[in-house]
Amino acid sequence: MFKIGFVKMGNIASSLAVDLALDEIAERTDIEMRILSSGPKMTTKEAEASADLKVWSPELVIIIGPNAATPGQTAVRDLYKGMPTIVISDGPTKKEARDVIAGDGFGYIILPMDPLIGAKREFLDPAEMALFNSDALKVLSICGAVRMVQEEIDKAISSMARGDIKLPQILATPEKCAEFMEFTNPYAKAKAIGALYMAQTVALIDAQACFKLKEIEPIALAAAAGHEVMRAAARLADESRELEKAGDSVSRKPHARSGELMRKIRLLEKPAKI
Amino acid sequence: MFKIGFVKMGNIASSLAVDLALDEIAERTDIEMRILSSGPKMTTKEAEASADLKVWSPELVIIIGPNAATPGQTAVRDLYKGMPTIVISDGPTKKEARDVIAGDGFGYIILPMDPLIGAKREFLDPAEMALFNSDALKVLSICGAVRMVQEEIDKAISSMARGDIKLPQILATPEKCAEFMEFTNPYAKAKAIGALYMAQTVALIDAQACFKLKEIEPIALAAAAGHEVMRAAARLADESRELEKAGDSVSRKPHARSGELMRKIRLLEKPAKI
Amino acid sequence: MFKIGFVKMGNIASSLAVDLALDEIAERTDIEMRILSSGPKMTTKEAEASADLKVWSPELVIIIGPNAATPGQTAVRDLYKGMPTIVISDGPTKKEARDVIAGDGFGYIILPMDPLIGAKREFLDPAEMALFNSDALKVLSICGAVRMVQEEIDKAISSMARGDIKLPQILATPEKCAEFMEFTNPYAKAKAIGALYMAQTVALIDAQACFKLKEIEPIALAAAAGHEVMRAAARLADESRELEKAGDSVSRKPHARSGELMRKIRLLEKPAKI
Amino acid sequence: MFKIGFVKMGNIASSLAVDLALDEIAERTDIEMRILSSGPKMTTKEAEASADLKVWSPELVIIIGPNAATPGQTAVRDLYKGMPTIVISDGPTKKEARDVIAGDGFGYIILPMDPLIGAKREFLDPAEMALFNSDALKVLSICGAVRMVQEEIDKAISSMARGDIKLPQILATPEKCAEFMEFTNPYAKAKAIGALYMAQTVALIDAQACFKLKEIEPIALAAAAGHEVMRAAARLADESRELEKAGDSVSRKPHARSGELMRKIRLLEKPAKI
Amino acid sequence: MFKIGFVKMGNIASSLAVDLALDEIAERTDIEMRILSSGPKMTTKEAEASADLKVWSPELVIIIGPNAATPGQTAVRDLYKGMPTIVISDGPTKKEARDVIAGDGFGYIILPMDPLIGAKREFLDPAEMALFNSDALKVLSICGAVRMVQEEIDKAISSMARGDIKLPQILATPEKCAEFMEFTNPYAKAKAIGALYMAQTVALIDAQACFKLKEIEPIALAAAAGHEVMRAAARLADESRELEKAGDSVSRKPHARSGELMRKIRLLEKPAKI
Amino acid sequence: MFKIGFVKMGNIASSLAVDLALDEIAERTDIEMRILSSGPKMTTKEAEASADLKVWSPELVIIIGPNAATPGQTAVRDLYKGMPTIVISDGPTKKEARDVIAGDGFGYIILPMDPLIGAKREFLDPAEMALFNSDALKVLSICGAVRMVQEEIDKAISSMARGDIKLPQILATPEKCAEFMEFTNPYAKAKAIGALYMAQTVALIDAQACFKLKEIEPIALAAAAGHEVMRAAARLADESRELEKAGDSVSRKPHARSGELMRKIRLLEKPAKI
Repeated sequence: MFKIGFVKMGNIASSLAVDLALDEIAERTDIEMRILSSGPKMTTKEAEASADLKVWSPELVIIIGPNAATPGQTAVRDLYKGMPTIVISDGPTKKEARDVIAGDGFGYIILPMDPLIGAKREFLDPAEMALFNSDALKVLSICGAVRMVQEEIDKAISSMARGDIKLPQILATPEKCAEFMEFTNPYAKAKAIGALYMAQTVALIDAQACFKLKEIEPIALAAAAGHEVMRAAARLADESRELEKAGDSVSRKPHARSGELMRKIRLLEKPAKI
Repeated sequence: MFKIGFVKMGNIASSLAVDLALDEIAERTDIEMRILSSGPKMTTKEAEASADLKVWSPELVIIIGPNAATPGQTAVRDLYKGMPTIVISDGPTKKEARDVIAGDGFGYIILPMDPLIGAKREFLDPAEMALFNSDALKVLSICGAVRMVQEEIDKAISSMARGDIKLPQILATPEKCAEFMEFTNPYAKAKAIGALYMAQTVALIDAQACFKLKEIEPIALAAAAGHEVMRAAARLADESRELEKAGDSVSRKPHARSGELMRKIRLLEKPAKI
Repeated sequence: MFKIGFVKMGNIASSLAVDLALDEIAERTDIEMRILSSGPKMTTKEAEASADLKVWSPELVIIIGPNAATPGQTAVRDLYKGMPTIVISDGPTKKEARDVIAGDGFGYIILPMDPLIGAKREFLDPAEMALFNSDALKVLSICGAVRMVQEEIDKAISSMARGDIKLPQILATPEKCAEFMEFTNPYAKAKAIGALYMAQTVALIDAQACFKLKEIEPIALAAAAGHEVMRAAARLADESRELEKAGDSVSRKPHARSGELMRKIRLLEKPAKI
Repeated sequence: MFKIGFVKMGNIASSLAVDLALDEIAERTDIEMRILSSGPKMTTKEAEASADLKVWSPELVIIIGPNAATPGQTAVRDLYKGMPTIVISDGPTKKEARDVIAGDGFGYIILPMDPLIGAKREFLDPAEMALFNSDALKVLSICGAVRMVQEEIDKAISSMARGDIKLPQILATPEKCAEFMEFTNPYAKAKAIGALYMAQTVALIDAQACFKLKEIEPIALAAAAGHEVMRAAARLADESRELEKAGDSVSRKPHARSGELMRKIRLLEKPAKI
Repeated sequence: MFKIGFVKMGNIASSLAVDLALDEIAERTDIEMRILSSGPKMTTKEAEASADLKVWSPELVIIIGPNAATPGQTAVRDLYKGMPTIVISDGPTKKEARDVIAGDGFGYIILPMDPLIGAKREFLDPAEMALFNSDALKVLSICGAVRMVQEEIDKAISSMARGDIKLPQILATPEKCAEFMEFTNPYAKAKAIGALYMAQTVALIDAQACFKLKEIEPIALAAAAGHEVMRAAARLADESRELEKAGDSVSRKPHARSGELMRKIRLLEKPAKI
Repeated sequence: MFKIGFVKMGNIASSLAVDLALDEIAERTDIEMRILSSGPKMTTKEAEASADLKVWSPELVIIIGPNAATPGQTAVRDLYKGMPTIVISDGPTKKEARDVIAGDGFGYIILPMDPLIGAKREFLDPAEMALFNSDALKVLSICGAVRMVQEEIDKAISSMARGDIKLPQILATPEKCAEFMEFTNPYAKAKAIGALYMAQTVALIDAQACFKLKEIEPIALAAAAGHEVMRAAARLADESRELEKAGDSVSRKPHARSGELMRKIRLLEKPAKI
């Protein structure tokens, strides 16, 4: 069995699904996983702790968490340099910063639509944190980001199985994500693209709350506004899926036991190998 | 710093938030965490792998995943017998089965409202899996289950800090969960309770899809029906929170840096120590 | 003309439509009806009053009301023993109890999805009562229960016209009800099934308010939660129908003047005899 | 016990709740009821059948059904002339026609907001019939029409108990109905008034389908349009009630065992005698 | 280039789109426009000011604003008598009044579904005014009134280009407007018709607020109720369009550069000349 | 009476309300208006035509339309240089470009939340154009942009009446706009801010459709996505207002006959001078 290790440092919504998405009904016989995390913190201390995963000798490593340009994330990468590794994060989005990551031999998937949470004690508590992740996960799952990440990892695994390592280097855009969902209804696709743009806007708003504002009122308002937009994006994503339900054209691509992807469109048909 | 270790075996929606909920803005200075998982599978093989967490010498262990009565979950507990450990799962709900767990010295929180997913290849793919978790997480976060779990773990930590270990033994009900959210508006509370009952109904429907039905059509219909009810529950939960927003009475209880719980009700007020 | 008599004892939502559903535009020339009720009460006193219908010499009798296992309902049945009679109720659901009814020669349709109302003065007033019935009727009409009841009565009438009495013995399930609506869109069907399961959950919640709880707060909360779930079920049912509207595939089966069933699918087509 | 008899001839949505609304939890000890109906038809034949209720010697008679100016309804009234009787119907609305009814000694409540159904075989089937009644009942219950009817009957009973017969003579308007709901939030009241006006518009649209149009396409479109407006009105009514929930100010006026009206506003308070 | 002049006197929602609708992407090469207005007022003083447009020598004049039977509007028409002119207004609806306008040589389009606003200081402020226009414009654009007006003006222009002046004389009805949208889904059409009837109801309600009621409470309630119905109509219109999106059958009829109408149905297809 | 002239060049959603907002019930006795437009086009030819307004000798001129940095808009400004003039547009947003406008003596209000429409024949037709404006106008009216523009113009008029000309120089932000609505409920304010950010995102998406993409599919998808986000923003704005309705705290600021602003909060109270 192919061994995939995950280092989760801090949290983005994609962190919640990245491992589960590779084996959604826990029946794949071709891969095994190991996930290690030190929780929400992402300092160099947590980075060091992530070295423990190496003992398990993963064949592919996924490092996932916020802003891959921060010191903690960089420290983790330093540990895994030389091993086949894919970095998944909401940033950096700038070409130069991404090139540095690629230059170090890492694959990456940058997801600006997996937005910064309104992480201020003046607004966020454990319930609100989970709620934001729920909304973000809804957008990412319906609009194609979850599938993009999963298929890209699946492709990397396949490439390694074929002895020809190819790691993704992707700056995700709303349009690229939506492509992965193979929408039949073009309005469903437009809604999905719209929802993803809204998710990107959330990052912008929450960044003000997290890094710029200083007073309780503007902080709480900005964080609340960001979370409202996230919730509105989740609703638009939901509408997208309802449109596909109306046409009985929801694209489903489950894994076969063998790990291969299958496909079905109509709810009452069986999935078939692609 | 107090060391809490998490073993995640398989997945329930609470798994996605349980560690993050203890330190929602990653600023607590009193605890550190380590999370270990082998992904969605939950056989005895994954159970064995979970032993690695012991090396880190956690002071408190949380074992979380589906149905604590299954062999894999039981095998994990066997490894951690004797260590202060809390089991979090959607089952077993029967008194005798829970008593066995307690009898072995474990604390537990059983959450029947964190329901079984429609885990059949005929219906579930990675996107649908993430989507279901999004809806479940929305219900659990808004209606009090996330806070119940978090506060109970926080209480256990405090009890140990005081040298007086007290682990929870809780079969969660919709009413108990809702209590934790300190709703001001009684209709918001009624909606939350209703949403949690709906989540429990989901488990019933999905169990048919997973364990009883054999043909593609009834399986796909049952799983789809279960996920529709989950989605409807998420929407009712959302309504609950909107009612509290209407009264500017959303209860927020963030962690202070010290780990203590704070509280705020009005959006534009500062949280204060309780 | 075939004479059908109805005894309404107490009220379930199906009571509101059962007679009207047999002749929805009041143009059938093959049947006539007589309905007798003593209102919401269902003691043996009301049961006795129901005997008056016999004078009219109905060829088929429908007894409809809550829980057919209660003394009042039993007393009515005693009066009609020996006459072709169908009992329609939300209970009893247990096989043995239903067998007793069948053993006495009665047909029956048990509808667990026509749920107990939150019948406590602490919560229910005339407006809330009518509102709950509105929501329940929406679920029953969209999701197939109204049609199941109507077609089964129509079939019984036909069987008697042919001189071959056959009375239904049905414990309705969400799946069976949905079958009657001949959904074209499978997601519409899944939503309908889900809505019916939710309606069954309502019974569970309201039963606590009606029979178990003693204090004003838990009673009012439970009853309100039950009614919120009923309302959420009505909304999911509504979504089901909207999906069929999206495909112009709403199944309509009006009665011809002769009493035969007709069918149409597209809104702008004429109904045709089946 | 005071004896109230109901003759139901044909059906309007108010017919579904008028008797139940007098004893919503079936515990009143001061009144007893008898309801007689011949189903949806309303010819003079059904009118004759309604005479049977007289045998029971009701002290007050309620005749309810569509358009009280039609021959069938007139024939029923002829039978009950001289007995204390209240006519409840959606028409006639014209002063002269109402004066005729009053001139014959009848009380009346005319409810133009209890609208004509789209009663054409080209559109209506039993399920659609029940669905329309569900939507109409939602508007009538939330916006005050159900309560107006119930309180007026209760007042008539009281007047007779005092030996001073006073029967209502009311042409209901949206504003008068809404008054009965004792709204706290003025926007809730405005929404209720709006929903009732919409219900009146439904009658206008459905009348075209029923009486004016001849071809399948315009008939089906008009009937469908009428039912869409009814559904939209139900949703606006629902919003009205949600606004009152937001302020925990839903007015509830249950009957005491004695038949007296009680009142409560906050969900968790007990009802108190008025 | 053909010269079209617009006199806007006072405001109806159609005023906001009538000129823009003739050249929605500002690329037509066959027409030029000039619009003159004196704002919301509509006395004879503003009427006089409208004469200035004549200097530009428009070939076709559109006079648009509330109730064409008022003195101000009549005064404007007096100025343009003898020029090819189309009057667009929400009234008068009566045949005789319209015949007077036609008798004077004017074309007209009367739109009773472009309703009177709740124009009382007790309720209306600039934000509420804009909001009402937003809702009205949504109904008019989705349900066909905007297209009817635009196509009728386009037809008048073409007729003049052919040297055969033909001006419209139309009393718009919900059914006629909906015809213009070329709906594929009949339920979408029914919803559109329903929304337009609701808009007509708004006029009825607002007229009470504007002209009949005298006290603050009934005025504010009536105006608010009217605006709630307008908002509900906008939502029903929105549903209509969503149904067409579900079938990828939204009818779009853009102008070619040449001014000819093009048509497309599927979102991803190019428009083609008709 | 104070004379205000408007030059409308091309269209932004604010163009639809800017003049009406100054005299929402057409009863102000202190100002008169004249509005001149050449329709949707905005070339230098239309700019020249705008000179005609000068004849009327307006005391204050408002130039409103898309992107004030374009040649047409610049040409209009050239004509009005030296007259008290306020430019209202969605751009330019850059400081330098705005400084040029201010340097020429103009006041300005730049509204990035009044976004570019998806102005491509492949997507936009007259109905879609009006629909987009409806959604934009909803956001602008509920969230404060309409009021900001109106109050700033009112202030400029007052300043001139006092002989002390002061023209606004404002780059509007979501936060500043929301400030004008004097929200009572902070969540309503957060939703309004969020909706305005979403509107800004629309501009970004539509700009791709208008200026960057070349193929029918990406153009139609991008334009559709932009309009979906606009529609989602309108819905979030609507939620904002519903929250204020729930607290009966909608801020209304109508004009008195004298032109002074009045204020009311509770629906059933009279407006009072500020």
